[in-house]
Amino acid sequence: MREGLIVDDCIFCAIVSGTVPASIVYADDAVTAFMDSAPINAGHLLVVPRRHVMALSGLDEETGARLFTVATRLGRALRHSGVRCEGINLLLADGAAAFQEVFHVHLHVVPRFIGDAFRIVADWTIHPNREDLDPIAAQIRAVDQA
Amino acid sequence: MREGLIVDDCIFCAIVSGTVPASIVYADDAVTAFMDSAPINAGHLLVVPRRHVMALSGLDEETGARLFTVATRLGRALRHSGVRCEGINLLLADGAAAFQEVFHVHLHVVPRFIGDAFRIVADWTIHPNREDLDPIAAQIRAVDQA
Repeated sequence: MREGLIVDDCIFCAIVSGTVPASIVYADDAVTAFMDSAPINAGHLLVVPRRHVMALSGLDEETGARLFTVATRLGRALRHSGVRCEGINLLLADGAAAFQEVFHVHLHVVPRFIGDAFRIVADWTIHPNREDLDPIAAQIRAVDQA
Repeated sequence: MREGLIVDDCIFCAIVSGTVPASIVYADDAVTAFMDSAPINAGHLLVVPRRHVMALSGLDEETGARLFTVATRLGRALRHSGVRCEGINLLLADGAAAFQEVFHVHLHVVPRFIGDAFRIVADWTIHPNREDLDPIAAQIRAVDQA
């Protein structure tokens, strides 16, 4: 069943189809959630579409909505599961430049606690003013509304 | 209009209601998107529910789905806007432990390019085996299905 939607050399397709073992947290007809095998913190899980979709650009709206809904719900479950969880990060990497490593869309659900090792590093010294931001907003709006 | 849903000292409520200026990219009846004033990269924008909701736990499913749909669509627009964008990160911080700073739910849409300054730092040395992961998955499932 659904073989036509599974890509042979994709590890997440193999997990969805059950040919590679994983610690499954949830599955329905559109998405599957399982524990990340290289967790940022204990309890880190991934929610993926069952169908092989490489990038956000290929994800239909309905499946994207389900991905977010299930990630939110599992984040709530994490907070009450006994796993150390004082906060949650949802993170999605779309494209190699954004650190996507497995090219099957996946939404990370990362339990966080004060004092954990997770950090976001960036150049926080950029403080644009309105004259910088308005033209960028206009550029994006122009494409979005085209 | 909608005053009852706006919290006086919330900067994002003030942006949604128009009392504080922002570079607006998109707005509908449920969500508003605008440029982040402290961007990780040029083009970094935020999508927020119009209604004041502090945490994911208070976000209704329909608005959450809209948040993700709009973020995905604006990510696609960013890639074609002329802003430097070779990839996209979607990021949501829920709770102070997860680095949430403004307590009105917001989904970051961050354009990325090879060689930018954005990095995720974590303790990547943890490599749990199946015997570690299965019980955690069971703990989360137990709460999720309760």
